[in-house]
Amino acid sequence: MNTTIDEQACPGFRAAGIAAGIKKTGDLDLALIVSDAPAVGAAVFTENRVKAAPVVLSMERLRSAQPRAVLINSGGANACTGAEGIQDARILTAQVARRLAVPEDSVLAASTGVIGQRLPVGRIEDSLDSLVCDLSPHGFARAARAIMTTDTYPKFIGKSFSSAGENFKVLGIAKGAGMIFPHLATMLAFVVTDFPAEKQVLEEDLRQAVSCSFNAVTVDGDMSTNDTVLILSGGTSSTRFDVSRKAPFREALTELCIELARHIIRDAEGATKLVSLTVTGAPDEDTARRAAFQVANSPLVKTAFFGEDPNWGRIMGALGCVPGSFDPARAAIRFGDVLVVSGGVGCGADREALARDVMRRHEYTITVDLGAGSSTFTAYTSDLSVDYVKINADYRS
Amino acid sequence: MNTTIDEQACPGFRAAGIAAGIKKTGDLDLALIVSDAPAVGAAVFTENRVKAAPVVLSMERLRSAQPRAVLINSGGANACTGAEGIQDARILTAQVARRLAVPEDSVLAASTGVIGQRLPVGRIEDSLDSLVCDLSPHGFARAARAIMTTDTYPKFIGKSFSSAGENFKVLGIAKGAGMIFPHLATMLAFVVTDFPAEKQVLEEDLRQAVSCSFNAVTVDGDMSTNDTVLILSGGTSSTRFDVSRKAPFREALTELCIELARHIIRDAEGATKLVSLTVTGAPDEDTARRAAFQVANSPLVKTAFFGEDPNWGRIMGALGCVPGSFDPARAAIRFGDVLVVSGGVGCGADREALARDVMRRHEYTITVDLGAGSSTFTAYTSDLSVDYVKINADYRS
Repeated sequence: MNTTIDEQACPGFRAAGIAAGIKKTGDLDLALIVSDAPAVGAAVFTENRVKAAPVVLSMERLRSAQPRAVLINSGGANACTGAEGIQDARILTAQVARRLAVPEDSVLAASTGVIGQRLPVGRIEDSLDSLVCDLSPHGFARAARAIMTTDTYPKFIGKSFSSAGENFKVLGIAKGAGMIFPHLATMLAFVVTDFPAEKQVLEEDLRQAVSCSFNAVTVDGDMSTNDTVLILSGGTSSTRFDVSRKAPFREALTELCIELARHIIRDAEGATKLVSLTVTGAPDEDTARRAAFQVANSPLVKTAFFGEDPNWGRIMGALGCVPGSFDPARAAIRFGDVLVVSGGVGCGADREALARDVMRRHEYTITVDLGAGSSTFTAYTSDLSVDYVKINADYRS
Repeated sequence: MNTTIDEQACPGFRAAGIAAGIKKTGDLDLALIVSDAPAVGAAVFTENRVKAAPVVLSMERLRSAQPRAVLINSGGANACTGAEGIQDARILTAQVARRLAVPEDSVLAASTGVIGQRLPVGRIEDSLDSLVCDLSPHGFARAARAIMTTDTYPKFIGKSFSSAGENFKVLGIAKGAGMIFPHLATMLAFVVTDFPAEKQVLEEDLRQAVSCSFNAVTVDGDMSTNDTVLILSGGTSSTRFDVSRKAPFREALTELCIELARHIIRDAEGATKLVSLTVTGAPDEDTARRAAFQVANSPLVKTAFFGEDPNWGRIMGALGCVPGSFDPARAAIRFGDVLVVSGGVGCGADREALARDVMRRHEYTITVDLGAGSSTFTAYTSDLSVDYVKINADYRS
């Protein structure tokens, strides 16, 4: 990842990642992020009505307490595990709280993995001493590795920004991977910053950043049982929060989230392409968003990406399923800079040949201009490959 | 198909299927269905806002005229072809009308194939004499073959039924194949009957039959540019329509449509499984329908079908995305007769082993009981296989 040593730490925060034996493979599977002082926290949780135990617990605690730590495991989602699952999450976070000497309700939790199985609580408890021992300002890289499931590489990005002459850091780790279709893939992201934001500002900035990053690779309301994007603001800065200084923070946070989201798509299960699907000329933002997702999520469009086939008819077919005050017969479609559809009709085989060249790249942009307004939205998507099916057919066995 | 010779014809109707050279392979690609007398017609067309030229033409003509014939081609969708595409459809149907000596606006049209390319009008015109020559009461089997695209076998079913002591026939042909996900796959079905139904009755009965058959394998509003289900009622019966006699007709029509729809799923691209996904105990029919489709269309659920993995957590995750007055945490899930989830929690590894045996079958039922009412809905779906991706990545090349 494009992170220098210098950017791998954020004052006031430590992290760790170890192998606790939750995964049978022996890979890292347990992470801890700790704020040295009570932090300000904000989060966006899954909108799925089936919420995993750690999501239920963290939502409750975030409302009332100032978070000090987050315990994250891969190798098991702790979802659909009933009252016992909630109890397991309570026991584990209580054990962490005791070791860190912080209030129980200041420890949050997140999990990812197969739904419907209890966590191996005993094994995790036995690992907590070494997890806490492992905490270090430079532990985020290992934490990023410990939250992976079918990801092929850890996602960890650090950024510096300055506001009114003072320098700040924002660090983020994420996992995704099942994102070829947005359905049900668990996405976790944890961000820390030493920028001293107030809770309300932090919540608003996170919501804004998520809407054009993590929620630009997934469809609202169509999320897994465990999805969580959490930010902690704390650290050692003596600066008092000044609302006039928040623009650089929001900008850095948004950039960080978009970069993490793009890494998630780039590493989507079996993906060979990262396609930015930009809708322009929409009558309103909601229509722009719906049109972008209708195209970006169409399995036929996504298999055509895999086949490097500029099959724009499938894009037109997807657009026709989007309600809204625009006329699909006026749409223009570009692959990269190559115009292949104008006024809803194809521009000929020569243009398709050029579009095919664009599609040979690993990353490219498709622009759909609806010609009906000035709203735009960019969704990020991958191709649908043979390997996606293989990975998901075999995931549990 | 389970059709005896006896059932392969319907009094008053003839059909034909020939190779007109639209497909490069030399396979049959042009079909004609003719009613010997002016028929009563009803149809359900795609709700996609991008409508193919033949759909636009047929919608217009069905409103005003009594249909006499339908010209159907595979090998090209005649969609996104602008004013020229409409003109092509007008020219071809006019040529058919002249040869049959019927009014131009009594000839309907349907097309399936790749979007965005003009039809080879000259080549089709040159084939019309032999197409008309080929017309026969037993021509439906060849017509069924001529409308295929990536289908691996023709879909043709005939049924007899009696009403008030008189015998009637209902014949149907269909094509589908891209139905693993409902998105954008073209589905065509043509039904003829000698039962003398009035237009309003025919329309209502067709709508009812489609809602629990073709629309139980696809999601409303999420259809291809060309989807068409058309029924023609005509024939030689001297019986006057009597509304008290319509129940046996509706029953036969519904059975026919469900059987055709199940054949479409059975033959879905790359499919190895036909799964009936029944939601019971829903608070209302809309919720039952949404829940059934949310599960039936989830790529993660469908890849688990392919992998023969009773990964019920993915079903729970899908249910959690469905709004409605039910609590996913009370759901019960059965694979065949095997209860694997009760009260939203798994019933253990023994049950999963039994469920795995059910999933080894080619066809089975999954029942999701929401425990919140008495509404039910059954959706039909297939697995998502490696071959689906291969077929769709390579479809044009």
